[in-house]
Amino acid sequence: MDFGLERGFQLWNPRYSTDSMECVPIRGIASSAFGEPHAMADPVKPSPVSAAGDALRKQLLQARSQSKDPAVAAVEDVPFNPPMPWFGIDIGGSLVKLVYFEPENVLPEDAACEVEQTKIIQRYLTSNKTYGDTGIRDAHLEMRGVPINHHIGTLHFIRFPSSAMEKFIHLAKSKGLSALTTTVCATGGGAFAYEKTLRQELNLELHKFDELDSLISGIHYIEYNHPEETFTFENPLDEGQCKRVPHSIRDLYPYLVVNVGSGVSILLVESRTKYRRVWGTSIGGGTFMGLCCLLTGCQTFEEGIELAAKGDHRNIDKLVRDIYGGDYSRFNLPGDTVASSFAQMMDPEKRKTARKEDLARAVLVTVTNNIGSIAMMCAMNNGVDKVVFMGNFLRVNAISMKQLAYAMDYWSKGQCKALFMEHEGYFGAVGCLLEYMNLGRINQNSSDAKPV
Amino acid sequence: MDFGLERGFQLWNPRYSTDSMECVPIRGIASSAFGEPHAMADPVKPSPVSAAGDALRKQLLQARSQSKDPAVAAVEDVPFNPPMPWFGIDIGGSLVKLVYFEPENVLPEDAACEVEQTKIIQRYLTSNKTYGDTGIRDAHLEMRGVPINHHIGTLHFIRFPSSAMEKFIHLAKSKGLSALTTTVCATGGGAFAYEKTLRQELNLELHKFDELDSLISGIHYIEYNHPEETFTFENPLDEGQCKRVPHSIRDLYPYLVVNVGSGVSILLVESRTKYRRVWGTSIGGGTFMGLCCLLTGCQTFEEGIELAAKGDHRNIDKLVRDIYGGDYSRFNLPGDTVASSFAQMMDPEKRKTARKEDLARAVLVTVTNNIGSIAMMCAMNNGVDKVVFMGNFLRVNAISMKQLAYAMDYWSKGQCKALFMEHEGYFGAVGCLLEYMNLGRINQNSSDAKPV
Repeated sequence: MDFGLERGFQLWNPRYSTDSMECVPIRGIASSAFGEPHAMADPVKPSPVSAAGDALRKQLLQARSQSKDPAVAAVEDVPFNPPMPWFGIDIGGSLVKLVYFEPENVLPEDAACEVEQTKIIQRYLTSNKTYGDTGIRDAHLEMRGVPINHHIGTLHFIRFPSSAMEKFIHLAKSKGLSALTTTVCATGGGAFAYEKTLRQELNLELHKFDELDSLISGIHYIEYNHPEETFTFENPLDEGQCKRVPHSIRDLYPYLVVNVGSGVSILLVESRTKYRRVWGTSIGGGTFMGLCCLLTGCQTFEEGIELAAKGDHRNIDKLVRDIYGGDYSRFNLPGDTVASSFAQMMDPEKRKTARKEDLARAVLVTVTNNIGSIAMMCAMNNGVDKVVFMGNFLRVNAISMKQLAYAMDYWSKGQCKALFMEHEGYFGAVGCLLEYMNLGRINQNSSDAKPV
Repeated sequence: MDFGLERGFQLWNPRYSTDSMECVPIRGIASSAFGEPHAMADPVKPSPVSAAGDALRKQLLQARSQSKDPAVAAVEDVPFNPPMPWFGIDIGGSLVKLVYFEPENVLPEDAACEVEQTKIIQRYLTSNKTYGDTGIRDAHLEMRGVPINHHIGTLHFIRFPSSAMEKFIHLAKSKGLSALTTTVCATGGGAFAYEKTLRQELNLELHKFDELDSLISGIHYIEYNHPEETFTFENPLDEGQCKRVPHSIRDLYPYLVVNVGSGVSILLVESRTKYRRVWGTSIGGGTFMGLCCLLTGCQTFEEGIELAAKGDHRNIDKLVRDIYGGDYSRFNLPGDTVASSFAQMMDPEKRKTARKEDLARAVLVTVTNNIGSIAMMCAMNNGVDKVVFMGNFLRVNAISMKQLAYAMDYWSKGQCKALFMEHEGYFGAVGCLLEYMNLGRINQNSSDAKPV
């Protein structure tokens, strides 16, 4: 979940202090604990594990010590690896994101069960591009030859709607997943919501990691292993001249991460291992979809975006020129500035003739503008000149990306850059998989890591 | 108009300077010139007039000097007053707000025409509570015994939808307004849009004042002349304990003004004569109305608010508990926090059963939360502990007022107060009337004021 209005400010105002304020949301108005900076495990280097990870590690080691398979039980004799298959799963408000690491070789000591069984599930996942009615593998995002925990292999990216979670559980059961593994690492709200069902139906223990920790960890890992991951747009609103260009953020701190899932979280990333949540809004991808479905009858995100691409929000919003009759020169506002989103729809005649395409575009512009405006405010307040937008709201959504790129560039006269990442909404799932891997690292590095 | 995303920041970040940035909105993403502080005429004390006012004053004096009526022409013999009737008009994106000053006595030297004719229009305006199909006098807001320009009288507050502007012009024509006066002061976007029509149809010269200057001027005047104008809520969400209590802001600078009309403008008021615009959003009252009409088929603002009062947004929004299955404890988020506005409406089954009342409430909560969140950010960034919410979005809208009061109090642990003003959306119109009055003051104080 990317949650709504709850926030963790950097406090510029001496009248307030983090001690004297907390933001627990009540009765419809969301807020949050003010974000103390989070110190994290370095996703690309061995590092100490979290308390949650520590508990998981102990459980895994205990399970291994009790295993009848001598190759599994002999953890002191071979390098520790969590049992394969290696999954990371991020169960969000709208989408479930699943990453699967396919190693070049599966060794007997890697698998929690028979190697052949592991290969069957591997073949099922990697040879298909769709699963059931709604599961999709984003084959174009596949990352080959990447290292995870002393293995080289391929990362696969799979998604399906959170509403299909029950179906997914049944599919996994029918494909024998529950025979392959006993633990899966998960993040996102659904890691909590579905924990009981997964245990009952698939005999899976879900080890839950915080979604923002996972997100940051995943960003660093993918950015490190995919040099052209991050990009920006040159001339974003000029169809003829628009160009997508790589723009690395590696070690270029601080930057903002604006993660647009169902809701929006804005994080200030100060180093590889330190970040804090500085803002959020509940007007995100879920709002676009919810309103778009209501207003146009569309069924899917892709359909909503396609409609929006053919629409014109200026038939729906009230522009400066609709109120001023032209530009508002004192504030240097051109006539086509949005003055009030959806305000033309107060007019019954205009409602009658409103096109679906225009309505979809207006929803998209409203949500995008609000995110851009809040992100710009955060960037300025935190002295940041790079804002990385990500999350599945930006999938197949060049309109919003270009609009954000243009706006950030324009407002800051080129001083603040909007950046985007190819793997859109998969960073949390990747980060979660890495948490799983950290357990193995600790086993090799810590005296506390011996089996009990 | 209260316009959208265009903004004028206080800049906290040394990387940016007002010199190096400007915010002119282009192609759907709004912005604005960074707000240099505005030095204004003091609305409650005689003060220098603006350049626009100066031009108007000269025109008026010229007109008077050419008058055939010796009482009008003899401007050197009697104190200068702009010709009655005295109107201020604010033509906004959704509503036209009109204030009319009814003096206790109309003297021959006050009127631009026959005293009897002035009295006829006065009787029409003050003895009716509705005008045409849509004009309404807010009799409960009437201010008696207030001083304007050495006169004591009553301020009347009238509103009608901006869409009825053409009808209003015909009504005014039929009631003989064009025979009474030759100049009217106006503000808001419509002052520009309707200038030509008003000149052609009513033979009226429209003298236009900036809407934000007018707003600030009107706030100070009304606050000064109506001690219980500003109020707050104690225990806003506790039906049994909720209490509305007066809370003056007089001379208690700085404070924020959050003006929620069709769109939203946020102003930092630093003294009686100095303010600047620090932020804005296009998600305002026009968005509430536009979406509410589309989703529920309601026709009026009142109807939308009544529907919302009976609804529950938790059936429409995706809450933390819908994603997490309960609270999200790491961020101290209760399960009923809004995670993603409207996100439940992605589900076709839930769309089928969605109630109008719930949809209206969800629109109201989404718009209100977004305004509250942005206002809180601005308050903290500017070191302000008083935020005054106003504008016609708050008319008959206790739900939003209480929600804002609760949120500001909760987020700031009682350090930042949300305040409200009784005259909601009329400050711009009042301020505009005062600009008209300033012309007279200059006439008495300036050597440049003699008739030519």
